[in-house]
Amino acid sequence: MNDTTPEELETALAAAAAAARPLAALRPAQRAAMLRAAADALDAAEGDLVPLAMRESSLPEPRLTGEVARSSGQLRLFADMLEDGSYLEAVIDTADPDATPSRPDLRRMLVPLGPVLVFAASNFPFAFSVPGGDTASALAAGAPVVVKAHPGHPELSRRTGDVLAAALRKAGAPDGTLTVVHGTAAGTAALTDPRIKAAAFTGSERGGRALLDIAASRPDPIPFYGELGSLNPVFVTPAALAARGEEIADGYVASFTLGTGQFCTKPGLLFLPEGHGLEQRLADLVADVAPAAMLGERIREGHAEERDRLAGLGAVRTVAVGGAGAADRVPATLLATTAEELLADPDPLLQECFGPTSILVEYSGADEMVAAAEAFGGNLTATVHAEESDDVVPPLLDRLRERAGRILFNGWPTGVAVTSAMHHGGPWPATTASVHTSVGTTAVRRFLRPVCYQDAPQSALPEALADHNVLGVPRRVDGSLTGEDLA
Amino acid sequence: MNDTTPEELETALAAAAAAARPLAALRPAQRAAMLRAAADALDAAEGDLVPLAMRESSLPEPRLTGEVARSSGQLRLFADMLEDGSYLEAVIDTADPDATPSRPDLRRMLVPLGPVLVFAASNFPFAFSVPGGDTASALAAGAPVVVKAHPGHPELSRRTGDVLAAALRKAGAPDGTLTVVHGTAAGTAALTDPRIKAAAFTGSERGGRALLDIAASRPDPIPFYGELGSLNPVFVTPAALAARGEEIADGYVASFTLGTGQFCTKPGLLFLPEGHGLEQRLADLVADVAPAAMLGERIREGHAEERDRLAGLGAVRTVAVGGAGAADRVPATLLATTAEELLADPDPLLQECFGPTSILVEYSGADEMVAAAEAFGGNLTATVHAEESDDVVPPLLDRLRERAGRILFNGWPTGVAVTSAMHHGGPWPATTASVHTSVGTTAVRRFLRPVCYQDAPQSALPEALADHNVLGVPRRVDGSLTGEDLA
Repeated sequence: MNDTTPEELETALAAAAAAARPLAALRPAQRAAMLRAAADALDAAEGDLVPLAMRESSLPEPRLTGEVARSSGQLRLFADMLEDGSYLEAVIDTADPDATPSRPDLRRMLVPLGPVLVFAASNFPFAFSVPGGDTASALAAGAPVVVKAHPGHPELSRRTGDVLAAALRKAGAPDGTLTVVHGTAAGTAALTDPRIKAAAFTGSERGGRALLDIAASRPDPIPFYGELGSLNPVFVTPAALAARGEEIADGYVASFTLGTGQFCTKPGLLFLPEGHGLEQRLADLVADVAPAAMLGERIREGHAEERDRLAGLGAVRTVAVGGAGAADRVPATLLATTAEELLADPDPLLQECFGPTSILVEYSGADEMVAAAEAFGGNLTATVHAEESDDVVPPLLDRLRERAGRILFNGWPTGVAVTSAMHHGGPWPATTASVHTSVGTTAVRRFLRPVCYQDAPQSALPEALADHNVLGVPRRVDGSLTGEDLA
Repeated sequence: MNDTTPEELETALAAAAAAARPLAALRPAQRAAMLRAAADALDAAEGDLVPLAMRESSLPEPRLTGEVARSSGQLRLFADMLEDGSYLEAVIDTADPDATPSRPDLRRMLVPLGPVLVFAASNFPFAFSVPGGDTASALAAGAPVVVKAHPGHPELSRRTGDVLAAALRKAGAPDGTLTVVHGTAAGTAALTDPRIKAAAFTGSERGGRALLDIAASRPDPIPFYGELGSLNPVFVTPAALAARGEEIADGYVASFTLGTGQFCTKPGLLFLPEGHGLEQRLADLVADVAPAAMLGERIREGHAEERDRLAGLGAVRTVAVGGAGAADRVPATLLATTAEELLADPDPLLQECFGPTSILVEYSGADEMVAAAEAFGGNLTATVHAEESDDVVPPLLDRLRERAGRILFNGWPTGVAVTSAMHHGGPWPATTASVHTSVGTTAVRRFLRPVCYQDAPQSALPEALADHNVLGVPRRVDGSLTGEDLA
């Protein structure tokens, strides 16, 4: 796949800019129909797209068909949200001439920011790529999308983009609603272009930081919503160990090796009380994990380099390495250290190793575990395995709530349910914008901004704010939520 | 007032960091009581504080007593919001083991970001300073606040800080909930301190840009919510001119000279159709405006410099200058140009001149007015004076909606009602973060981030998410909004 030329990029950006106003002018229900059409087209193209994705990403078929379903489901979730209309956050405060000072008629709603640039991820060729959550939420907001394809699956990106763009167009979307571009130069140029009003990114901390710096240093800085990676620590209390130690060992190895460890929610560290007695079981489990292909050569090399750096630290020993395979197959690796070592020098240990490697951390008491929790920066998730009676849970939770976007109990962080209550985000460096999420319906807020109309005549108001509530949108009118017309 | 020393700053930051967890742990109703106590204390201290504010800001007494009322009212508005509880955005999706993939129990709410640094403004010694909207919304969120005082009213800032901190402490707030610091060095050092998790600012584009760059270049970038200024253009159609020309002239001069033009919503440009016939009336009105003191010497000099730069442009002529007064009194100034000149070279004209100066822009037809609207960057407000029959309004509104946070009809932008529907914000350079507002209850969102609990036992959940809804918080449970307990 050739990189997008500057001329092609100009065409894409001009088309996105031209689409912004007509796309914003569509009724929410019309955009919902567009999203459903895109979802249907994606499902219909599964037979075409999945083999392409298998070839380009080395991911297995069931995982990829699952991802297509997740992505089309996500498009439909945003369609439902559009039809519900509460995402517009319509608020009407009618005039009060008797207030001091007298209060005008004020009507507020959210409107799209304008064209959004989406940097696709490598590890989810559908769900965090061209048809992924960033694209779905931006389109739902009414923002045209320019996707910068991930170089790991360029042909899939092109074909998926064609499928979606054709479906959107057929459903009434203006040309330029969705375009896919290729190459680092095109991505960077688009990020600095004044027609782009926001960007979203899923990838490495290094890559995300570089792009954030570009977005922030524009003459007109724009929001940059980056999800940059996470260590996802798991804390096991002595009581949980006693109650379910073997089950925890099994779940841990399954979770950190799932998808060859290529999830942003992979558990990177497991805290166990010293004397846990699980090491042999963990070693056996890891040895039994079949070596597997990673997404691409660069990612495989990056994993090997980081794994070897961790294994080479004086504080770290290697517990087990999975069985051998072909040269491009990567064995699972379990490393170990102690909380004491981690607390003495946290930085070298608290680095994400993207791939099937994780670190067992033995701690000597509740205080040390809580102190270790405090050594972490921001994370997408943190997990607690505990029993109801555990006294350590409240102080541990205090630390984790300040550091993680999602806190799990007695489970594993891989797997992100797409529901309204989900939060996929967290303080830096998990994300660049911890007040937002990239999964779930409130992801749409990243691409919307409020506008308030003061004393506007009915003819000048958007439909969602007019007295006659033709859209049936829920509105907070003088403090009360209603879908009715104004009296 | 001496600048805060590094040692004093360290004490303030350490106290704010130590206050974060206990403050976050308070029930919303407890924080509401704190805010009401702060509001009552502010009102009670009015007799002390207003004379100090008059001396330091040169603003007249009625304006300042009004500002105290506005500020205490704002604290109480956030208290109401806390008692309502919907700001927590609690969402509960109960487990669905039959879903594919099976769905865990997910419960999401908003939690405070941690200590917030507030850079106070010069032009509102109360409402955008120590007891202002940024402070009120951060405290409401449950975030400790360090206010960097504006050097224009240092003694007032110190005294107001003392009044508020004492009231907060008495109402049960932890020490370190509110501190005031002084000096550029302290402000910059605080902005780079890892204990500060967000910053808010109201001031100039130059100052805001410099601080934004510092916040964005931290090893752990933090959100920087800056309100940097605005031109607030006003567009008058021929029909409105015919119907209400003299009233418009009167309202315009009153608005741009109100408070000696020291409002971020001051109308900086008035677009009138050529041959409007109002020039003599406008000149007479401006000549009648009494010269007035500005907030301080630096602001007075900045205004003079920018006014003289504008007046010196080849495209600009001076229509009228207000009467003379003492050397430190500033006359109102009305300049004029044409839309044709503006479109030929917009940048030199489209710069904020903070003070009682505004520019009349004559346009030759509807297309030219719409084109001129398109030349603007982001603004806090844009105003339209039109009649119902005006065909130019829809295309004009399309442009203004993309550029302004608040769109007014047949009124004047000075004066910002504090209600739920208000939006005070706008695209860059009006603000650094157009998805947020600095006035109104949703300002609290700037200092909150989501956390999701997955499969948490009841004992580990925050009260707002437990089955027993002891707080009576509105929650979206499996899609339906309810304040009831879970069955």
